[in-house]
Amino acid sequence: MKKKVSVIGAGNVGASLAQMIVQSAIADVVLFDIADGIPQGKALDISEACPLWGSSSSILGTNDYSHTENSDVIVITAGFPRKPGMSRDDLLHANAKVVSDVVENTARLSPNAVIIVVTNPMDVMAQVSLKVSGFDSRKVIGMGGVLDSARFRTFVAWELSVSPEDVEALVLGGHGDLMVPMPRFTTVKGIPITELLSKDRIDALVERTRHGGAEIVSLLKTGSAYYAPAAATYQMVKAILFDEKRMLPCSAYLDGKYKTNGIYTGVPVILGSGGGEKIIEIELNEQESIDFEKSVAAVKLLVSKLNS
Amino acid sequence: MKKKVSVIGAGNVGASLAQMIVQSAIADVVLFDIADGIPQGKALDISEACPLWGSSSSILGTNDYSHTENSDVIVITAGFPRKPGMSRDDLLHANAKVVSDVVENTARLSPNAVIIVVTNPMDVMAQVSLKVSGFDSRKVIGMGGVLDSARFRTFVAWELSVSPEDVEALVLGGHGDLMVPMPRFTTVKGIPITELLSKDRIDALVERTRHGGAEIVSLLKTGSAYYAPAAATYQMVKAILFDEKRMLPCSAYLDGKYKTNGIYTGVPVILGSGGGEKIIEIELNEQESIDFEKSVAAVKLLVSKLNS
Amino acid sequence: MKKKVSVIGAGNVGASLAQMIVQSAIADVVLFDIADGIPQGKALDISEACPLWGSSSSILGTNDYSHTENSDVIVITAGFPRKPGMSRDDLLHANAKVVSDVVENTARLSPNAVIIVVTNPMDVMAQVSLKVSGFDSRKVIGMGGVLDSARFRTFVAWELSVSPEDVEALVLGGHGDLMVPMPRFTTVKGIPITELLSKDRIDALVERTRHGGAEIVSLLKTGSAYYAPAAATYQMVKAILFDEKRMLPCSAYLDGKYKTNGIYTGVPVILGSGGGEKIIEIELNEQESIDFEKSVAAVKLLVSKLNS
Amino acid sequence: MKKKVSVIGAGNVGASLAQMIVQSAIADVVLFDIADGIPQGKALDISEACPLWGSSSSILGTNDYSHTENSDVIVITAGFPRKPGMSRDDLLHANAKVVSDVVENTARLSPNAVIIVVTNPMDVMAQVSLKVSGFDSRKVIGMGGVLDSARFRTFVAWELSVSPEDVEALVLGGHGDLMVPMPRFTTVKGIPITELLSKDRIDALVERTRHGGAEIVSLLKTGSAYYAPAAATYQMVKAILFDEKRMLPCSAYLDGKYKTNGIYTGVPVILGSGGGEKIIEIELNEQESIDFEKSVAAVKLLVSKLNS
Repeated sequence: MKKKVSVIGAGNVGASLAQMIVQSAIADVVLFDIADGIPQGKALDISEACPLWGSSSSILGTNDYSHTENSDVIVITAGFPRKPGMSRDDLLHANAKVVSDVVENTARLSPNAVIIVVTNPMDVMAQVSLKVSGFDSRKVIGMGGVLDSARFRTFVAWELSVSPEDVEALVLGGHGDLMVPMPRFTTVKGIPITELLSKDRIDALVERTRHGGAEIVSLLKTGSAYYAPAAATYQMVKAILFDEKRMLPCSAYLDGKYKTNGIYTGVPVILGSGGGEKIIEIELNEQESIDFEKSVAAVKLLVSKLNS
Repeated sequence: MKKKVSVIGAGNVGASLAQMIVQSAIADVVLFDIADGIPQGKALDISEACPLWGSSSSILGTNDYSHTENSDVIVITAGFPRKPGMSRDDLLHANAKVVSDVVENTARLSPNAVIIVVTNPMDVMAQVSLKVSGFDSRKVIGMGGVLDSARFRTFVAWELSVSPEDVEALVLGGHGDLMVPMPRFTTVKGIPITELLSKDRIDALVERTRHGGAEIVSLLKTGSAYYAPAAATYQMVKAILFDEKRMLPCSAYLDGKYKTNGIYTGVPVILGSGGGEKIIEIELNEQESIDFEKSVAAVKLLVSKLNS
Repeated sequence: MKKKVSVIGAGNVGASLAQMIVQSAIADVVLFDIADGIPQGKALDISEACPLWGSSSSILGTNDYSHTENSDVIVITAGFPRKPGMSRDDLLHANAKVVSDVVENTARLSPNAVIIVVTNPMDVMAQVSLKVSGFDSRKVIGMGGVLDSARFRTFVAWELSVSPEDVEALVLGGHGDLMVPMPRFTTVKGIPITELLSKDRIDALVERTRHGGAEIVSLLKTGSAYYAPAAATYQMVKAILFDEKRMLPCSAYLDGKYKTNGIYTGVPVILGSGGGEKIIEIELNEQESIDFEKSVAAVKLLVSKLNS
Repeated sequence: MKKKVSVIGAGNVGASLAQMIVQSAIADVVLFDIADGIPQGKALDISEACPLWGSSSSILGTNDYSHTENSDVIVITAGFPRKPGMSRDDLLHANAKVVSDVVENTARLSPNAVIIVVTNPMDVMAQVSLKVSGFDSRKVIGMGGVLDSARFRTFVAWELSVSPEDVEALVLGGHGDLMVPMPRFTTVKGIPITELLSKDRIDALVERTRHGGAEIVSLLKTGSAYYAPAAATYQMVKAILFDEKRMLPCSAYLDGKYKTNGIYTGVPVILGSGGGEKIIEIELNEQESIDFEKSVAAVKLLVSKLNS
């Protein structure tokens, strides 16, 4: 009767996501990991905070896939992390195997779930998940654009000394260095930043956004970002559980839209209980089209590498 | 040490605002009204919900202005309500007297407070408050645009079947039938509605927004809106208390900006602990300029009526 | 897919409850009233606050019972209010008819709903609702003890100058002047107030609690409490929707427990998705037993008056 | 004008606490650590989640103590973590040096701050902080009892299948294996668990509580608890910032109360803007007194070890 979210991978992103779900009490959580003790320990720790949060949600840490049965949402964060100097591409083969295993073991137990893929390279891992699960493509989506947009929003807010709450941003394309931030659809209280900032400053913010993940890796040295990735995933999970019809940039399977076929990439999507229920197609200008195609090509290359 | 907000007027808007502040525990509240028993009764009722909300805020209902001393924010909701068939203008003289009295009795007790004016006709009442208080004009602002924008956002969200959270909107000008909704700065996740809706549909939504207050009056018959007005005011109060630097459409005193002088009207304002700290000037196109001037002229007319 | 709560009666308690549900976005709401325009106007007003609350919940104001179909929870607040000088008993016959009509029109459309009865005299109205609905008795519960306890907690918090969040209280028996506050189960951070306050002070707080509703009526003069009643009902609604297993004092149908048969009265109940899933029986001491029986007798008297 | 909290130590507890403060937007945060890059990276990551949380709080990661100037609260989490097999005592000398350094570098920059000590062995580190800071003893408190109580509450909630929100618990004494859980002041909705559970079951839950930290260490193997410790500290920070007058079990400097002199240990404390404003003294029964003295003796032993 209560909603159930299974988070696969009890690393920093997975555990932070679990914390956010349990703290806000929007669902019960199963935190799965192959490492013995880690999901159990983190789940126990999170449980012990529930009296302080006034949360009645439960969380189970486990190494047993059967506990994920009948999930409403499955979030895949498992995989090897990106290390300093490592590109998102290096992770390709290793993580494809991890994600395949996860999907094989979870999809059949939760045939009505929506799968959210976080593991990098994310757009490719979404495609792997679609294939292995055999799910309708609306039921398999990737987390990337919400995070990239949040970073862009943060940098714009700092530049203009305004609350990030009043900044909106749209980042399309693959979740990698070739992502396509869209300044003309990046606004403060509805006003495009193109009316508020010089082209130079916008270019600098776009550039920082593109390398937002790497910036954190270079600071942490032995780890990568997890708070903002978890918060971004949380927003998607909530939109699905509460059928919110949020319009969020997510990696969705394009089947003709945006002149693109048979590939996952970031576009505006209506998120509700049906998953990525609808892709919103907006007209790109010439430069945006070029950038978008370049970004799609990069995802396609990874997919072909994987399949070769 | 704790922040203190005085809400003047314990009618539906004032009491709902008090409830929202106390429930979220962002400040202690003094709820003032000249009617004996009403502020005391509503304050007691709100107090008795605090254990359920986990709130440690206090609320005092009173008929004694001295209790408002040292407020951080003073919200003026007192005044005669708009009845069915009554225009915002009819309220002019009656409410000017009420607001003058309130400001005379509160401003000297809280010389560092920010005053938020809600009483209609709001832009004029803001001007009255500025004059009577002798405050710096940044410390006296009016609530109108946040509410009008929220209505516009709601109608856009319904039209497009998306969450209202992803819709932004900007409504400028006086808080009356001549308000100036700005469709090109009204967006869904950064995408202007001009790319998502036909001109006809946009015009219909703009028209509904302009008459949003009257629509509710015509339904309730013996009352006017209070939930959304209270929620809009709450957002302004919070922005001030927490120095959020929100960019919100508020009624601010224009002293040259927007080619306007010596009058309150709705423009984008940065709200922080200093009140309306900064007016953001955006370039209006020809039609918008005409509409804005018309709206300003209507406010000026009321001000001159009041002064004659 | 989203949870649905129908609130019957768009007066102050019903509309405040609707606001709290929509603001926190835990469910969609149908706000029903027989008065034309009132539920529509209040629902529209609440809708227009949703962009400000970041809420994706919807609310429909209606005069048509068919819109309540397939509700998860039905809250009955409809009925004539208690006026100054009027006892809870005076309302008996008038409200029994109202409640019967409501249950007849809603129960068959939402056969799996949990019904929460708020209309006074509440314990009797719960019994009416049980009979008319034909529901399992766990699916029909009354709101009284949560409110009475919240009042007791507030008074204790004030007396000791501590946050109400750290005060717990238990009030048993019928929701009327003969309610049974239980000082030995009323605690600050687990410490019974009997260790912290003198008997005299406790007696005074108990007395104030018993007349908590009347105190507000005497202040407001032309109305009765609604913020705390709505907040108390909200807590019950949330416990049911999220299957929280809260232990809350509610009016439940006693069928042998507490040496009582065939009557609704306030006892500790585990609230979850099944409604009042389990009655917790605690041993009463002699004085408590006497008070409890007196309180039950008063409810029984009303029931017999109603049936005669 | 906005409240400022400095968190010293950007490990898991410190960073999780920073996240909770920034997410709930109750204050701006300075996250300090001597490790270069770590506080900067985590602060940036947390910043980038702010648009998603709707938070206008700022967070600065730094290696420079001067940024902590004029803090309202300073939380000390810095220190070496407890490793598997390691007792809390082993950390003594190493962490005393760390904490001394921190206090020396922060106290003079924020002479009006309240210091919350989290570093273990916590009661001793609180004493070190008191001495080095020269602060009034009400301005230096330790976090232990809130966490220990939260664990006890969790285990009671599980045992009885009720929401942890309805369970209160009191744990006194030093924050170590000799802590003193108080079953007769541990309640469900005000009802002592001694009326709801057998002595055997209570003893088992008490025992599990005493070793709650070790249980998580044994699961995680290479780390210790941080979510619940951060949540517990958050509750204390919030109580101070908002002057909530929460009654919470904290480590306070006893100067005669509880027949104890010149030592920090866990007792019920009223937390407000003045820090641990008041110690609540409750009468202990014989066994409780023995246990409390044993626990105090253990803290004293550590203090004397440190001073020898």
